[in-house]
Amino acid sequence: MNAPMVFYILGHVLRIEGIFMLLPALTGLIYNEKQGLVFLILAVALFFIGFLLSFKRPENTTIYLKEGCVITALSWIWMSFFGALPFFISKEIPSLIDAIFETVSGFTTTGASILANAESLCHASQFWRCFTHWIGGMGVLVFLLAIIPMSGGSNINLMRAESPGPSVGKLVPKMRQTAALLYLIYFFLTSLEVLFLVIGRMPLFDSICTAFATAGTGGFGVYKDSLASQTAYIQWVATVFMVLFGVNFNFYFFLLYKHVKKAVKMTEIRAYFAVLFASSALITLNTLHQMESVSGAIRHASFQVASIMTTTGFASYDFDLWPEPSRVILVILMFIGACAGSTGGGIKVSRFMILIRSIRKELRSYVYPKSVSKITIDGSPVEHEVVRSVNVYFITFFLCFTASVFIVSFDNMGLITSFTAVAATINNIGPGLELAGPTQNYASFSVLSKITMIFDMLAGRLELFPMLMLFNPKLYLSKPLFSKRVK
Amino acid sequence: MNAPMVFYILGHVLRIEGIFMLLPALTGLIYNEKQGLVFLILAVALFFIGFLLSFKRPENTTIYLKEGCVITALSWIWMSFFGALPFFISKEIPSLIDAIFETVSGFTTTGASILANAESLCHASQFWRCFTHWIGGMGVLVFLLAIIPMSGGSNINLMRAESPGPSVGKLVPKMRQTAALLYLIYFFLTSLEVLFLVIGRMPLFDSICTAFATAGTGGFGVYKDSLASQTAYIQWVATVFMVLFGVNFNFYFFLLYKHVKKAVKMTEIRAYFAVLFASSALITLNTLHQMESVSGAIRHASFQVASIMTTTGFASYDFDLWPEPSRVILVILMFIGACAGSTGGGIKVSRFMILIRSIRKELRSYVYPKSVSKITIDGSPVEHEVVRSVNVYFITFFLCFTASVFIVSFDNMGLITSFTAVAATINNIGPGLELAGPTQNYASFSVLSKITMIFDMLAGRLELFPMLMLFNPKLYLSKPLFSKRVK
Repeated sequence: MNAPMVFYILGHVLRIEGIFMLLPALTGLIYNEKQGLVFLILAVALFFIGFLLSFKRPENTTIYLKEGCVITALSWIWMSFFGALPFFISKEIPSLIDAIFETVSGFTTTGASILANAESLCHASQFWRCFTHWIGGMGVLVFLLAIIPMSGGSNINLMRAESPGPSVGKLVPKMRQTAALLYLIYFFLTSLEVLFLVIGRMPLFDSICTAFATAGTGGFGVYKDSLASQTAYIQWVATVFMVLFGVNFNFYFFLLYKHVKKAVKMTEIRAYFAVLFASSALITLNTLHQMESVSGAIRHASFQVASIMTTTGFASYDFDLWPEPSRVILVILMFIGACAGSTGGGIKVSRFMILIRSIRKELRSYVYPKSVSKITIDGSPVEHEVVRSVNVYFITFFLCFTASVFIVSFDNMGLITSFTAVAATINNIGPGLELAGPTQNYASFSVLSKITMIFDMLAGRLELFPMLMLFNPKLYLSKPLFSKRVK
Repeated sequence: MNAPMVFYILGHVLRIEGIFMLLPALTGLIYNEKQGLVFLILAVALFFIGFLLSFKRPENTTIYLKEGCVITALSWIWMSFFGALPFFISKEIPSLIDAIFETVSGFTTTGASILANAESLCHASQFWRCFTHWIGGMGVLVFLLAIIPMSGGSNINLMRAESPGPSVGKLVPKMRQTAALLYLIYFFLTSLEVLFLVIGRMPLFDSICTAFATAGTGGFGVYKDSLASQTAYIQWVATVFMVLFGVNFNFYFFLLYKHVKKAVKMTEIRAYFAVLFASSALITLNTLHQMESVSGAIRHASFQVASIMTTTGFASYDFDLWPEPSRVILVILMFIGACAGSTGGGIKVSRFMILIRSIRKELRSYVYPKSVSKITIDGSPVEHEVVRSVNVYFITFFLCFTASVFIVSFDNMGLITSFTAVAATINNIGPGLELAGPTQNYASFSVLSKITMIFDMLAGRLELFPMLMLFNPKLYLSKPLFSKRVK
């Protein structure tokens, strides 16, 4: 284990978090809030600690996959802990565990809140809360890759640990350039949403926060009722941008490099839109009788489908009141999730495509036992290793899910609440059903349940294995932690 | 596709069903019930039709895996249809779909009933209802294998399609002998349970029916309240025998051939007992406060854990009233199921062992990326093909499960009811929670839901692929159906 390198990168992460905190500090200054000072002091402190940790670059900068996992997991835990301090210090969230829950929910772009009323926060805290979504959406290590140089193949191991989806490719030959381009597209789309929201007469501050929450597919809102009392225009803008941020970013890469044909032919994108349209249509039909108008039914169905499938978690309607088939569709969408390589969570569309194709392959093997066929996506065969890891991912996911439901069930809040609260956190969505529904919050869960869900949010965002690796004794026992030369 | 062979075996299956129906006919004679005549006429008719179909042995008796699947799926559908006729003709179950539901539930050893009161049936029908469990438990084709000779490797393809578990081995060199031995052990254990129940002063007829339902891990009872109002002795006898029938029958083979060491070392058996004890202990602790005595708490917890895990589905207590953690444990047990190679359903303990070991292997590969390791069970490596098919099984299972929950949700009976009703049928258990709970029945579901659950029960019993194969167009399109020489 290359421990010096682990600390070196953790130091960098802290420095970046410190810099990021200057923004809410600035917000505090603009709105003349004392909380701004808290952010400023913390920003300086984090930068200083980070500076100390990353002062000396280790001789050996090689990172293997295991270090990539450990660095990623620790970075996120570390970031969340320090990110929670402003809420706790200002007593806006008086319990430390609640503050950590809220911050993890922010960074992991979950959007599950323990606050009954988000409007009670000061502007600086509100900004920070939504900004964590934006930071977490693309990943802080991807950001790091864009700005600090690292040796050889090391950065791909970091990116593999943090990026969502079954396989990570370099989009352009240089990893650093890939990371920078990703952030560029991300920044551009976010700005575009702010523009559209401001045109719809949403105040600038609210527009920025809402755009942050959409971009990260997070779902924290500045309003108590999420986006339910906004105009139809605002709701449609949010719907469109949620869908756009749930798209595999390779799509935008292809567009940027004018490979339009390649972009349009991406099977995952097609499947993603097919599921979006089909689910919206089904829910529209199923809820039509309880909505005031057809256009309203279409709007709320599309909004809610986009919100849940991209794992954003905004609400335009209390969908817990919808008929059972609609709620079942939403629960299914919770698990499917967005495209790989997007800011969304869930199991991911491309994983499901691989899973469904492996079933088809199995059925074929019953008819032609001797045929050798490979699963293909976009015309090219999927490596055996990827298929295997997708299978293992799926199984691990369900075991983590089940264990969590079991722990949360000790709160005796009802099976549907326990089940959907875990589903909403492990898939990084936000609201579930019943007591975890869109009009409720997570404050009433026990500390044990909150810790479980904090773990689930992190595990879900980092695709399980980096978090599970922390519990792998082999990691600590196999080699001296501080050996200079790593195998 | 070797269609003549498909019809030949279907004919044999009908003949056997006809012979089996003589037993309820005899019961009718003993109790002087008119219904006995219905069984007698049907028995003769089935035997005659079966005789015609299997009159001429096809020239080519070779069966490949695909034919094995088709034969198995069709046999079970066919058997269930004819098996439902007595209930329908006598108007004891006035709706045909309900009669088919009840019979499929019998043969697949599910035990989900549409009857509000089983005591209202006449003796002959009651006998037949419980006897279907006994027939379905070991499998009618396994019975067939024991009595009719077949060419070369063909019978293993039949057995693979019907037997539960990830891999099927010949226990003794000859398949026919294996099948016969299996039925012998099965018959012996059933008789032993009858004996113990009669000693506990249960009437002989009730003892036989209860033993049938335990042996097949089915769960149909002769009493309205299952075994809730029986003595503690009877409940303990049922618990012990449920556990015994959930054991991998290889265990008894080893004992029979005096390989005691090998038997005791079977990892699946150890895991099975570990889960049984741990779950019973947890539920005992969790329900202690609402039970009248400690011994009662232990008894009901053990009974219910054995009943759900072995997928029998008897009830000694209305477990829908238990606290949430206990109900979550029961729902988890529903999915784990019994050992492979037992009469129980569910996903099977050995599949879970393979799944968990593949996660462990994945985690290890993060630390040692270049290590090549194989998953082992009982010291010997598990073939890559088996691991892959277990993975695909797990995924297919969850997709079937989800699709079914979606369809059943249109009945608007509540998410927990829909979820657990499907879980209880696809895992061949019987009772679920809430409106599908132990004190309820399945009569109030819509016809569409009943058809879905009929499919699920068959798919669950036959391990998914034989049933799914029927929907595989490749099966019908690839080769002329009646070609004499099959590829």
